[in-house]
Amino acid sequence: MSNRPETPLLDQITTPSDMKGLSDAQLKQLAREVRAETISAVSETGGHLGAGLGVVELTVALHAIWDTPKDKIIWDVSHQSYPHKILTGRRDRIRTLRQKDGLSGFTKRSESPYDPFGAAHSSTSISAALGFSVARDLGGNCPEGLGDGIAVIGDGSISAGMAYEAMNNAGHLKKRLIVILNDNEMSIAPPVGAMSSYLSKLYAERPFHDLKEVAKGAVGFLPEPFRESAKRAKDMLKGMATGGTLFEALGFSYVGPIDGHDMDQLLPVLRTVHDRATGPILIHVLTQKGKGYAPAEAAADKGHGVSKFDVVTGKQKKTPSNAPSYTGVFSKALLDEAARDTKVCAVTAAMPDGTGLKQFQDRYPSRCFDVGIAEQHAVTFAAGLAAGGLRPFCALYSTFLQRGYDQVVHDVAIQRLPVRFAIDRAGLVGADGATHAGAFDTAFLANLPDFVVMAAADEAELVHMVATAAAYDQGPISFRYPRGEGTGVEMPERGEILEIGKGRMIREGKGVAILSFGTRLQEVMQACEALDARGITPTVADARFAKPLDRDLILKLVETHDALITVEEGAIGGFASHVSHLLAEEGVFDRGFKFRSMVLPDIFIDQANPRDMYAVAGLNAEDIEAKVLDVMGVETLGKRA
Amino acid sequence: MSNRPETPLLDQITTPSDMKGLSDAQLKQLAREVRAETISAVSETGGHLGAGLGVVELTVALHAIWDTPKDKIIWDVSHQSYPHKILTGRRDRIRTLRQKDGLSGFTKRSESPYDPFGAAHSSTSISAALGFSVARDLGGNCPEGLGDGIAVIGDGSISAGMAYEAMNNAGHLKKRLIVILNDNEMSIAPPVGAMSSYLSKLYAERPFHDLKEVAKGAVGFLPEPFRESAKRAKDMLKGMATGGTLFEALGFSYVGPIDGHDMDQLLPVLRTVHDRATGPILIHVLTQKGKGYAPAEAAADKGHGVSKFDVVTGKQKKTPSNAPSYTGVFSKALLDEAARDTKVCAVTAAMPDGTGLKQFQDRYPSRCFDVGIAEQHAVTFAAGLAAGGLRPFCALYSTFLQRGYDQVVHDVAIQRLPVRFAIDRAGLVGADGATHAGAFDTAFLANLPDFVVMAAADEAELVHMVATAAAYDQGPISFRYPRGEGTGVEMPERGEILEIGKGRMIREGKGVAILSFGTRLQEVMQACEALDARGITPTVADARFAKPLDRDLILKLVETHDALITVEEGAIGGFASHVSHLLAEEGVFDRGFKFRSMVLPDIFIDQANPRDMYAVAGLNAEDIEAKVLDVMGVETLGKRA
Repeated sequence: MSNRPETPLLDQITTPSDMKGLSDAQLKQLAREVRAETISAVSETGGHLGAGLGVVELTVALHAIWDTPKDKIIWDVSHQSYPHKILTGRRDRIRTLRQKDGLSGFTKRSESPYDPFGAAHSSTSISAALGFSVARDLGGNCPEGLGDGIAVIGDGSISAGMAYEAMNNAGHLKKRLIVILNDNEMSIAPPVGAMSSYLSKLYAERPFHDLKEVAKGAVGFLPEPFRESAKRAKDMLKGMATGGTLFEALGFSYVGPIDGHDMDQLLPVLRTVHDRATGPILIHVLTQKGKGYAPAEAAADKGHGVSKFDVVTGKQKKTPSNAPSYTGVFSKALLDEAARDTKVCAVTAAMPDGTGLKQFQDRYPSRCFDVGIAEQHAVTFAAGLAAGGLRPFCALYSTFLQRGYDQVVHDVAIQRLPVRFAIDRAGLVGADGATHAGAFDTAFLANLPDFVVMAAADEAELVHMVATAAAYDQGPISFRYPRGEGTGVEMPERGEILEIGKGRMIREGKGVAILSFGTRLQEVMQACEALDARGITPTVADARFAKPLDRDLILKLVETHDALITVEEGAIGGFASHVSHLLAEEGVFDRGFKFRSMVLPDIFIDQANPRDMYAVAGLNAEDIEAKVLDVMGVETLGKRA
Repeated sequence: MSNRPETPLLDQITTPSDMKGLSDAQLKQLAREVRAETISAVSETGGHLGAGLGVVELTVALHAIWDTPKDKIIWDVSHQSYPHKILTGRRDRIRTLRQKDGLSGFTKRSESPYDPFGAAHSSTSISAALGFSVARDLGGNCPEGLGDGIAVIGDGSISAGMAYEAMNNAGHLKKRLIVILNDNEMSIAPPVGAMSSYLSKLYAERPFHDLKEVAKGAVGFLPEPFRESAKRAKDMLKGMATGGTLFEALGFSYVGPIDGHDMDQLLPVLRTVHDRATGPILIHVLTQKGKGYAPAEAAADKGHGVSKFDVVTGKQKKTPSNAPSYTGVFSKALLDEAARDTKVCAVTAAMPDGTGLKQFQDRYPSRCFDVGIAEQHAVTFAAGLAAGGLRPFCALYSTFLQRGYDQVVHDVAIQRLPVRFAIDRAGLVGADGATHAGAFDTAFLANLPDFVVMAAADEAELVHMVATAAAYDQGPISFRYPRGEGTGVEMPERGEILEIGKGRMIREGKGVAILSFGTRLQEVMQACEALDARGITPTVADARFAKPLDRDLILKLVETHDALITVEEGAIGGFASHVSHLLAEEGVFDRGFKFRSMVLPDIFIDQANPRDMYAVAGLNAEDIEAKVLDVMGVETLGKRA
C-alpha cells in the first residue's frame, strides 16, 4: 500500500528497548504514530480497531516504563493488543493480522516472547498475572526472566466472576501485582489541561495510600467540566461495584481514575507505581474506544470489529452476503416463537449482538436477560427460570459455554430442567482462530444423561430446531450452528417440531452411507457430486440428533451398506463416539463392517478463513470424497492374523 | 433405635403448614426438638452434622414465616438441609440419609416439592433464586405455585465468582429476592440477651435503609463482649469483601449481622423482610457450625462430615481401614516430589483436607495456594505459575474440575502449559451421589490436543503418576484416582517416571483381551479369576494413558486376540472412544473384530456405597465376567445381510 502514514519515530523502534531513551514529548509523538499505524494496518486487514485505539497511550507508556519481556504485560481478551504488537517486533507483519499464516488477532505465547500469556476469552489476565508474580517470588524462571505481573483488563471483563476470584486471591496473597483497569465505557471529556496534569503529578509525588484522598480533595478545585467527568468516573462502576472501595476491600491499593489518553497523567502515575508498589495495586484508567479516529469514535460500537476500510472516509468494504447468517436466522426464529408463547425468554452473557438476541431484547425487554460476562450464572439462572415454568433459551457461543459446563451438568442435566441451549459458533470460526473454535460442545453435552443434542445442517433446519426446542419441556435440549452465512436454502414459513431422536434421509445410494451431523452436510453433498461422476453413489443421511441417536436409521444404514462414515464439526468424543458405541454394542463390528468417523483433528487450528481451516482439519468435500474412495477402493490395512 | 429424643411438638409437624399457628415460644421449642432429632438421625447414618446444626433456628424461622413450597428456599450446597428435610415431610425417612434408596444428603427436586432446586456444588443458590423471582414476575408457574426466591448461602460459597456474578445481575434486575448469608466462620459470643433482642426489634421497626445505620449506632451502647463480636462480625468478611458495603454496591439492601441462633432476633427481622422487601436484600446471619452439640462444637471441623456416632459421647464409629486412601497416597507422594524439587507447588480450591494438600500446606506454606471456592481462577492461576517456570499441581475433585473447564481449554491446553491436574474422586463416589460423580473428566480432557491423560490402577500406580507428572514439563498432564482406600498393594520406595503413552501388560492370556483404564483393574482381575475356573483366560492390560494411546499395545492386543474389551470409570467419550477411533481408522473393524467398551451408563446414579453404585453401572467383576462370556460364547447378533 502506498498511503502509509509517516512514522519517523516509530520507524526507529524495533522492540521496547529502543524506547528507553525517549523523552516524554517523544513518547507522545510515538503514540501518535502508533495510532496512525494501527488505523492504517486495520484498514487493510479488518479486525478489532476500537479496542486498540483506546490503549495506544497506555501501551506506549507501559513499554516505556516497564522492562518487557521480563515484565509480563497480560492483555485481557487481547483484541486490544495491535499497538502492543506494533511495538514488540511484529510491525513488519502487522498487515497480516487475523489472516492465514499471519499474526493472531490476539496475544499468543508461540508468537512472541512479549506475549507471556495469550488470551481471547475474557477475565483471565489477573489470575495469570498473579501466577507470574508468585512464580517470581518462588524462584520460578523463564527464558526472558521474571519481573512484574501486569494485567490490563477492561471494565466489562473485570465484572466477571473469574476476575473477582482472582482479585480475592491476590488481595489475600499481598504480592506485588499491577492491575490496570482499562475503563472505556464512557467517553471522557476532552483533555482537561493543566489542572489534570497537576492532579496527576500530585498522585505521583505522594505515597499510594494518599493518592485517593488527594484525588478526592482535588475534585472541588477542578473546573466544572472535569469535575463532572470525575464524578462520572466515580459513578461509572455502578452496576458492577463502586469504584475504589470495592478494590480496597479486596486488598488492592486503588489509584484513579486517570485519563488514559493523557501522557502527562499516565507517565508519572505509572512511573510511581513502577517504583513504589509493594502489594496488589489497581490503576483505574479512563479511555475511549476508537480514540483518535473519527469514524470509529462516531460509530455506535466504537469500531469494535471492522472489515477492511478506507482510512480517509472510514467506509468499510463489506462483502455482500448471499444468504442470511445463522445467527440472524436464529434471532428471527426465536422472535417468532416468542410471539406465540409468552413463556419463551432468553439469556445472553454480554453478547446480545453476537448471539442475535439484540432484536429479542428490543422487542421483549422484560424477557431478555443480559447477565454480563457471567456464563456460570447465565446457565444456572436459566435453570431457575426453567424451574419456574418459563422456556429459557440460553444463547452462547460454543467456546464460551465451556465456562458454564459444571452448571450445565449440575444444575441443568442432573435436574433435567428444560433449558434450551442455542449454541452459536459451532465448529471452526475463522479469523478468531483456535481460542474461539466450537470444537467440544457435542462431546461434553452428548454424554450427559437425558440431554437432547441437535445440530442444524442448514438454516432451515435451524428454524425447525428452534421450534423443537421451544416445544420440548421434558428436559435440557441444545442445538448448534456455525458462524457465518447459511446455504441459501428455501426457508420455511414456520419452524416444524422435529421428532426427537429421528434423523432424515437426504439421498439414497448404495455401498457407502455417509451420516452427517451439522453443516458439513453441504460438503458431503459436494463430495457426492464428484463421486457420482465416478459411478460411486453414496447414501447420505442427516442425523440431526447426536442424542438420542436414531438407532433405527443407523442400524438400517449398516444393514444396507458396506460402510458407514460419520462427519461432524467437532472433536472426538462427540457424535461419532456415540455411533461407534452403538455399533460395537450391537455387534456390528464382529463380523466386519467398515466404519470411519471424520472429526476435528487432534490439533488446535490457527486462524484462516473457515474453508482453509476445514482444509487443515480434513473436513472439506475433497476430504470426504477421499475418505469414501479410501473406504471403498483400497484394501483395508487390518493387521489381524 | 430406642434412645430417640422426646419431640412432642415436632411429632405434630408433618409439613411446614403445621407450623403456622405456633407462638414464638413454641417455635423455639420446635427448634430445640429439630436439633435433637438431627443429632439423633445423623448419629445413626453419619453425614454432614455441623452444617445442619448451624441452621436449625434459621430453618424453623424460614418455614414459619414463608409459605413453602410456594416460596422457594434454596439451600446452597445443601448439606445443611437435614433440619429442612425433617420439617418438610421426610422425617420418617431421615434415618436413611445418604444411604442406598434413602434420602439424598442434599436437596433434590425429585425427592420433594420443598426442594425447588437441588444443590451439592457451591454457589448456585442466588442464580437459581433469581431465576424463580424473575419467573414469578413473568408469569411462570409450577405445581406448587411461585412465590419468593430465597437463597441461603454460606460465607465460603458467597465468595465464589459465580455468587458474585449472580448478585451483580440481581442488583441490576432489582427484583424482590432474599439472600440469607449464613456466616458460620466465627463462633459468635453466647446469647447477648436483652440488648441484642432490642437491636433486632429496632431492625424490625425501621425501614430497611435505616437498619444498618441503627445497627452502627447501636454498637456503642452494647456491653463489651457483644461490641467485640459485632466488630468481628464486621471484620469477618475481610478477604472476601467488606460487610454490607459490598452488597449495597451490588444493589442489595443489607441487614445485619444478626444472631442466627436467637429466635428473638431472627423472627422479627425475617418477618419484616417478608412483609416489606421490594428489591434484592441480603440478611447477614451469624451462626455456629455444630451449634448445640458439644462434641461437634469442640471438633476442629465442627462436625463437618461425621461417621455414625454415640450421641452421649460423640465418639464416631469409624471402620478401621485396611489400606491407605488414594488421597493420602497422593498427599505423601506430592510431599516427596516437593522435597526433591523446590519448583513443585500446589493449588487447591478450598479443599486442602479433601484433596490431601493439608500436609503440603503445613510443610510448604509458601508453595501451597488455597484460592477459595474459585476453580476458574485456580486453573488459570496454575497456568500462570507454570508459565513462570514452576511445576504446579492443581488438585481438584473430578466433578469440581468441571467448573474450570474453559480455563483448562483456553489457558492450559491451547498454550500447552505444564499444569499437573491431580483429579481426585474419579468415578462413582458413594454417599454424595450423582452430583459428586467423577464421570466426565476423561472425556473432556482426552480430546484436548497435547494433553496427557492418565488414570491410576492402584495406589502404587498413583505414586508413579505423581512422579511422572512432576517430571513432565512439555505440556498439560492429568492423573485421576478414586475416593476411598487403595488396594493394599506393596508401595514403591519412590515413584518411577512412566514412559508417556505406554501401558503395561498385567497378565497374558488368550482369546479375549481386557484393556483397563483406572481402578476397575481390580474388578477385571477378580473377573479373570472366575473366568479362569471356566477355562477362559483373558489377557489383561492396564492402559495407564487415555492420551496418548499406546497404539502398539492396543494393535498388538488386536492382532493376537479375537476380542478387546475396554473398561473405565467414566462416561462415553473418554478412553473407549479414543480406542475405538483408533481401531476404526486402522481398519480393524473392516474384517471383523469384537470390540466392546464398558463405560458408565447413560444415567445419573443415586447414592449408595460405591460397590452398589458400580453394580447399577454394570462395572463390577460380575459384569465384566458376563461381558467376556457374552463376547466369547454367544454368537453375535450382527444384523447385516
